[in-house]
Amino acid sequence: MATKRRILTGDRPTGRLHLGHYVGTLKNRVALQHEYESFFIIADLHVLTTKPGKEHILRTRQLVREVVLDYLAVGIDPASSTIFVQSTIPGTFELNLYFEMLVSVPRLERVPSIKEMARDAQLTTLPFGLLGYPVLQAADILLPRAHLVPVASDNEAHVEVAREVARRFNRLYGEVFPEPEGLIGDVLVGTDGQAKASKSLDNVIYLSDDASTVEQKVRTMYTDPQRVRADVPGRVEDNPVFIYHDAFNPDKAEVDDLKARYRAGRVGDVEVKQKLARAINAFLDPIRERRAYYAAQPDLIEDVLVTGNRRMRAESAETVALVREAMGLPVLEEVGTVGAMLPAGLVYC
Amino acid sequence: MATKRRILTGDRPTGRLHLGHYVGTLKNRVALQHEYESFFIIADLHVLTTKPGKEHILRTRQLVREVVLDYLAVGIDPASSTIFVQSTIPGTFELNLYFEMLVSVPRLERVPSIKEMARDAQLTTLPFGLLGYPVLQAADILLPRAHLVPVASDNEAHVEVAREVARRFNRLYGEVFPEPEGLIGDVLVGTDGQAKASKSLDNVIYLSDDASTVEQKVRTMYTDPQRVRADVPGRVEDNPVFIYHDAFNPDKAEVDDLKARYRAGRVGDVEVKQKLARAINAFLDPIRERRAYYAAQPDLIEDVLVTGNRRMRAESAETVALVREAMGLPVLEEVGTVGAMLPAGLVYC
Repeated sequence: MATKRRILTGDRPTGRLHLGHYVGTLKNRVALQHEYESFFIIADLHVLTTKPGKEHILRTRQLVREVVLDYLAVGIDPASSTIFVQSTIPGTFELNLYFEMLVSVPRLERVPSIKEMARDAQLTTLPFGLLGYPVLQAADILLPRAHLVPVASDNEAHVEVAREVARRFNRLYGEVFPEPEGLIGDVLVGTDGQAKASKSLDNVIYLSDDASTVEQKVRTMYTDPQRVRADVPGRVEDNPVFIYHDAFNPDKAEVDDLKARYRAGRVGDVEVKQKLARAINAFLDPIRERRAYYAAQPDLIEDVLVTGNRRMRAESAETVALVREAMGLPVLEEVGTVGAMLPAGLVYC
Repeated sequence: MATKRRILTGDRPTGRLHLGHYVGTLKNRVALQHEYESFFIIADLHVLTTKPGKEHILRTRQLVREVVLDYLAVGIDPASSTIFVQSTIPGTFELNLYFEMLVSVPRLERVPSIKEMARDAQLTTLPFGLLGYPVLQAADILLPRAHLVPVASDNEAHVEVAREVARRFNRLYGEVFPEPEGLIGDVLVGTDGQAKASKSLDNVIYLSDDASTVEQKVRTMYTDPQRVRADVPGRVEDNPVFIYHDAFNPDKAEVDDLKARYRAGRVGDVEVKQKLARAINAFLDPIRERRAYYAAQPDLIEDVLVTGNRRMRAESAETVALVREAMGLPVLEEVGTVGAMLPAGLVYC
């Protein structure tokens, strides 16, 4: 069996991925993908928690392709990692129900992101499924029995729920799940200075943006609002332009020089931003190249997902069998969903 | 395809069934089983909402046999009805998750039975899964696309949630589910005079009680507490002894005579109770005979469940396919849970 420890993380397919995703989790995924056995979930069912409805689901399905292309573009190796779509894995639904018995309503009400999501989606009343968002995520994490969950810090509270579920399950039914640990990445500031780069705030640079789009977005980036002229000393701390320089400009000497001159009022925004755009474009160039390379292969994404779904379904069946055995539920012989029989000795009598 | 309308109802396997179950729902099931296509669910997953833990699950599995024996004993025909165990049906888990997106937290908080169940189970905090009890029940009801749900009146609010879920789903995704109607049976008073006959209150007569147990339970039944002697006029209304006479004594002339003399203070409790015990035993005799007949066939219950589970899994696969198609989710080709492929044209690309 697998001796490597395992990673589970992923994304809701709500749009193309951006630099915020890179800083928060993609960077860690790429760095650790060969050290760990990696499972990357495209969490289409989670989209339903705030947006049920057929148009949303069909739109979501189209966006799955974009997310997988972004994964491959940043350097995730489809040969060594398992990329799969949540709704194609039966064990997700099953673990979700078992885990719902192990978490209390007040515990879920204390998860801060739930109310934020309800507000962002302009919901007037809280759907039961949205309150259960972290439980479904616990099912995602524990289904491949993952040890490590690379997520941005705004997702840390969900990993904590998954840890509690694993502990509670193991205590009630015996040791089945590792207690997953979060590997917490930074939350990237938005190009408009808001605390978080987010598609819905339209303050992001996509991994698939072309060079001129990047230049244009950087040109209009929020900087120190007190600095009305190039000769006014400016503030580097909490300044998006310098946060992005620190994150994406590998030329530390250039960044230090710009910071010093910015603080002294001896550099214009234009120069700082031109150098940032150049750095981001240099960072994105190999990503764009890989994206184009993969996008040009017509069946590639389909193959990646068919293979990944199949692998994850095998993992799922294995975990569900362990779970049912631990719980004392009948273990189903998996001869197929239709007409599956209970094996002798495990029937109800 | 089936032209008959469908029934779904069932029981949690928490113990042998009693006269309260008969009055509330079993009577209606037997009466309608040939007019409707009948699905009877042994709801073992619902037990987890208040009692997770392996001992409870193993105990539950043993009790499944008793419940099925009670079904057959009251006259449910296993050849024409589908008796199945909830946890063996994959679609239960799947519909449950979809439906959780369609019901709000405040709506579920208004269902009165949830708090009662939490109190009865002496829970200090509300499990998320217990708040979702009616959602899981909606999945049970809608999975076979049932039209009618024979339940006791204390379960009426859950059927209403299922109706709302069906309406909401159909509006969002297109017409898949009938709006199920409740067929509401009476709640039988307890032998101790409490409002409800309930195993946990130990105030029930089981369908499988032998004649002397029935005599003993009837002898100690609660009657009019004001009536300290046989010559004191008594109250017939709300009097458990007469409620049971009305429900189980087919000799209406005898019952009318007893009521008249009771009101006039011209009959002793002993006579009223002896005649009640005789009536209940006469009612139970054919039930006991059938129970003994079925219990003597070693593989029968196993066969009934293997057949029922298989039938229900086929129904489940059909409904899930309709649901996924309506929602716009990929419809999985069911070549088996492990290694199932997405059919061409429905993959993510």
